[in-house]
Amino acid sequence: MKKQEIKKLNIEDIKSPRDIKDLSTKELEYLAVSIREFLIEKVSKTGGHLASNLGAVELTLGLHYIFDSPKDKIIWDVGHQSYIHKILTGRAGEFDRLRMTGGLSGFPKRQESPHDIYDTGHSSTSIAAALGMASARDLTKDEDKGEIIAVIGDGSMTGGPAFEALNNVAHCKSKVIIILNDNGMSISKNIGGLSEHLGKLRTSTGYLKTKEKVKDALNKVPVVGEGMKNILANTKDNIKYMMISGGVFFEELGLTYLGPYDGNNMKDVLAGLSQAKASDKSVIVHTITKKGKGFIPAEKDPDKFHGVGSFDPETGKVKSSGGKTYSELFGENLCSLAREDSGITAITAAMCDATGLGGMREEFPKRVFDVGIAEAYGVIFAAGQAISGLHPFVAIYSSFLQRAYDELLEDICLQKLPVTFAIDRAGVVGADGETHHGVFDLSYLIPMPNMTVMAPCTGKMLGEMLDYASNKDTPCAIRYPRGEAYENADIPAFNGENIRLCEGRDVDILSLGNMLPHALEAKELLSKDGIAAGIVLVSLIKDGEKESMTGDDYLFDKEKSPKVLVTLEDNISHGGFGEYFLEILSSEDSLGDRRVINVAWPDKFIEQGSVGDLFRKYEMDGEGIYKRIREVL
Amino acid sequence: MKKQEIKKLNIEDIKSPRDIKDLSTKELEYLAVSIREFLIEKVSKTGGHLASNLGAVELTLGLHYIFDSPKDKIIWDVGHQSYIHKILTGRAGEFDRLRMTGGLSGFPKRQESPHDIYDTGHSSTSIAAALGMASARDLTKDEDKGEIIAVIGDGSMTGGPAFEALNNVAHCKSKVIIILNDNGMSISKNIGGLSEHLGKLRTSTGYLKTKEKVKDALNKVPVVGEGMKNILANTKDNIKYMMISGGVFFEELGLTYLGPYDGNNMKDVLAGLSQAKASDKSVIVHTITKKGKGFIPAEKDPDKFHGVGSFDPETGKVKSSGGKTYSELFGENLCSLAREDSGITAITAAMCDATGLGGMREEFPKRVFDVGIAEAYGVIFAAGQAISGLHPFVAIYSSFLQRAYDELLEDICLQKLPVTFAIDRAGVVGADGETHHGVFDLSYLIPMPNMTVMAPCTGKMLGEMLDYASNKDTPCAIRYPRGEAYENADIPAFNGENIRLCEGRDVDILSLGNMLPHALEAKELLSKDGIAAGIVLVSLIKDGEKESMTGDDYLFDKEKSPKVLVTLEDNISHGGFGEYFLEILSSEDSLGDRRVINVAWPDKFIEQGSVGDLFRKYEMDGEGIYKRIREVL
Repeated sequence: MKKQEIKKLNIEDIKSPRDIKDLSTKELEYLAVSIREFLIEKVSKTGGHLASNLGAVELTLGLHYIFDSPKDKIIWDVGHQSYIHKILTGRAGEFDRLRMTGGLSGFPKRQESPHDIYDTGHSSTSIAAALGMASARDLTKDEDKGEIIAVIGDGSMTGGPAFEALNNVAHCKSKVIIILNDNGMSISKNIGGLSEHLGKLRTSTGYLKTKEKVKDALNKVPVVGEGMKNILANTKDNIKYMMISGGVFFEELGLTYLGPYDGNNMKDVLAGLSQAKASDKSVIVHTITKKGKGFIPAEKDPDKFHGVGSFDPETGKVKSSGGKTYSELFGENLCSLAREDSGITAITAAMCDATGLGGMREEFPKRVFDVGIAEAYGVIFAAGQAISGLHPFVAIYSSFLQRAYDELLEDICLQKLPVTFAIDRAGVVGADGETHHGVFDLSYLIPMPNMTVMAPCTGKMLGEMLDYASNKDTPCAIRYPRGEAYENADIPAFNGENIRLCEGRDVDILSLGNMLPHALEAKELLSKDGIAAGIVLVSLIKDGEKESMTGDDYLFDKEKSPKVLVTLEDNISHGGFGEYFLEILSSEDSLGDRRVINVAWPDKFIEQGSVGDLFRKYEMDGEGIYKRIREVL
Repeated sequence: MKKQEIKKLNIEDIKSPRDIKDLSTKELEYLAVSIREFLIEKVSKTGGHLASNLGAVELTLGLHYIFDSPKDKIIWDVGHQSYIHKILTGRAGEFDRLRMTGGLSGFPKRQESPHDIYDTGHSSTSIAAALGMASARDLTKDEDKGEIIAVIGDGSMTGGPAFEALNNVAHCKSKVIIILNDNGMSISKNIGGLSEHLGKLRTSTGYLKTKEKVKDALNKVPVVGEGMKNILANTKDNIKYMMISGGVFFEELGLTYLGPYDGNNMKDVLAGLSQAKASDKSVIVHTITKKGKGFIPAEKDPDKFHGVGSFDPETGKVKSSGGKTYSELFGENLCSLAREDSGITAITAAMCDATGLGGMREEFPKRVFDVGIAEAYGVIFAAGQAISGLHPFVAIYSSFLQRAYDELLEDICLQKLPVTFAIDRAGVVGADGETHHGVFDLSYLIPMPNMTVMAPCTGKMLGEMLDYASNKDTPCAIRYPRGEAYENADIPAFNGENIRLCEGRDVDILSLGNMLPHALEAKELLSKDGIAAGIVLVSLIKDGEKESMTGDDYLFDKEKSPKVLVTLEDNISHGGFGEYFLEILSSEDSLGDRRVINVAWPDKFIEQGSVGDLFRKYEMDGEGIYKRIREVL
């Protein structure tokens, strides 16, 4: 056999997927190695979603080799595994500014490239979007009829919209290709029957080879007769799972099942994808990949390298942040409460460690429930527990809790149940951008009757609020931001009421939760101009047990309060605290000639960027607040 | 055989499930007949959910016969099939006031009876709630450990939370009993792979008998060896579905599958439920029932008798309402638009006829997509279509669209896609009560960037708005109420701007959509007192293409507008238009010493009752508005 020359591409020279079309399988394999090196080097500096991308290198190469993007449309579920796709579509040169202010997004963005066909960020949407596109393709008379491909992880497959979509595949006659990127774990170990089902497939040694043999044998079986029916009706689990499940579960739903393939084997990937392309009806291609593949520290601890900050590319050592995060404090405090009260449980949606519940899971494994990426289910499950006398704490990121809006309202608030929501990553989160900023929660929580809404201004106060909530028998939400907890020794303990931190003749600043440092800075700047600002710590944003809140609840005094009132909140302006407070004063006829200035995020989706940059840009920081106040004072 | 005396219970004498414990199967069958007569008689007068209850008579009798409520807890998914449960738990006497102001609820209500263990109204929650309760039962040391039973229809099984829950059954070791009440149709024909799967089971003649035979045969098969494995890997659809599917789909998910049973056969029902009770792990009992069973008109047209007004109990003739409903006008207008523009599609979540899309489905069957009770999926599916150049109209009731909050925000608004939401049943709906009032949509839509929010004040204007929306390339929501459309010849055509209907020196009433008749009445009453009220028709509540709205957009004039401004909206107060408008004036420093009065539903869940009663009680009608204005003027 003639030895071929191996063509080696320079990563940053790749301008479009066309550049890889002529490569041999061997050359693709070499490219995979270079891509892994590139990813480790770049992400070690910027931080980002490393482990899932390392697992998806061959799969992405295969997709761009077999299919023709953007005519063929690839939808990345969640989207944090789209880095290689970005490299292959000419964006390698932008990785130095990955996830930074003004830089490359860590998720697919239609505005960034015609190859990014659907914006994602939240999980379990890709199959539904693919079916929508496929139905549109088949309805229109366009010549340009490409394939529609959804790439979805096994974790995302536990979410409601993914199931709903699978259930609609049979009905929707249009062909889609679903790539199940099964890396045996979602963000943390994923949960449920489907996961176990996939787990069994994964651990069936030699499955692929056996399957081939079985196929051969079956070609010789002539008739499927009555006798066989009898046998089929009593199949036992192990056989059923090993030999039938791979197909039945999905074929029940009208999908042709292909696989499982070794998703880190270039040849296997190409074979699977070619077969999917050749099919004339919808298929699911089951590929098994290894998260963190090719970087030992990430293979060993893929959770740590799921979304990671900067790290040492040699050792994998992650640069330590400073003090304790709000998430850690939540976990520690809840665990303490759980020691005292056996009725306390915790519920997480595939974010056990990230929400700080790892310790409690270790100490009370039976009282921590990881429901998978299934926020709606998690909230109803909590309602069921609360009705039966427990007090569940549901820890979900602000932007993901949006998935359970209806259940918060109908299952929790309407039934007025003692469930506490620990809403992590509330407010702007930074690098993950538009889809991850938790800036809508006040707008969706405040209108919900019976819901008490709180926000601590320090890590210490978060502990006090958890204690307070654990003693209530009505729904509570506590929202707190991403990252290290702010501490301030001057803040009195929270006892269920709002607190005046200081008096001020000219202006009162009503500062919600994490806005405190900005409020203090603004006060400082104002005082230099001779303007005296008071600060009210709005920790109890809304008391769900009160028929309606009054100005008094926010330490407002119709007679004595200054002429300018400023509300600060790390939330979108509409429907937030500012409007709520304004309405209270208006309905009490307490406004008089006062000005109320609501400092909040404007009516648009806030882009990615460092939290500091964003606060500066939108005049939400001390200086911005100072400026806004000076405009009227 | 000795002839036994048949014990006949008087329906209204039943005080608790204990009263049926001593009945023979025969006697239960007689009772079933009486219950059907009772239901037809009562519901023919009050209106209500007839067909699903007629189908569930034997099932409910069986549940209360075999289990011991309230120690054993029965959760009714959606809950409109709980009438027989209400009869058997001592509430038959209250059926004359079913669904009326202050009367018996048409859904389970914890406040109504200890037998109503979980409030429902929205679909697909029962399994999740059951797992929550079961996990709580098994964590606590109570002696009182009953069974937890979820009763769910095949339609509800197409919803995300139901799938998420099924997927968690394996993980949650606690036993639950799931009764799949498979009546072959949800509200309209249900959709998707699972539905087809169940359909195949239903139509397999003699399935039950065959199964018994197979079981006998299998008891004789000694070893499950290699040879059998080979055969199993190539099972063909028909056999697979007939013989394995009944079990595999659910057993994949860790559930023991029992059935299918004839759910309208008392003996069969008792057999299935006994077996479920005896099981020590979670089971799904598949019962097949006939919607409308025992009332010919309802058997023939169960859709018509799903939620029905009063009718003739002899003929089934439903009393005709008056003019066209908003839903009908939506369907007709959309169908006209679809004739002109082949890019228009319609999406419904199992409510094709109820949302008015029946006609369009007939004329353009390929362009109407019924996705099942899967609102989240439907919205993402629409996003996929819009990205591919179509303009989908998504018709979903206001309170059910809550299920797709996250998808509205992240898939539609963030991507700024041309999808129009036809939000039916917006505002208070009347008899269905708390869970069905559509009074949160303005609060969840207004804070969503890029979303244009509109409300027509007449049926004619709904048509104009649909036309207007079909020409936009950004997201639109049009909200309109349940029932007959209001018409008023004085209203000018909608052209994308708000309209002043009349000037008024003393007060300006900003009337949203369906509040117009109340505004006119209030104006009339005020004029008798010599107070001149202007009316602004707020049809364009928020323009998603404007960076921010100003007072001008609502025909507010800082210099000339009167000192009192009143906003009217059929929505909860917080986060609604009133607060939004107030914030606009405040941020423009246009308030001066003006009073803004926001007339909206208070911060609580609004109970069931006639729409007229509710408007009167909460001072939302003309007289109430007049009173509120007189308090300040």
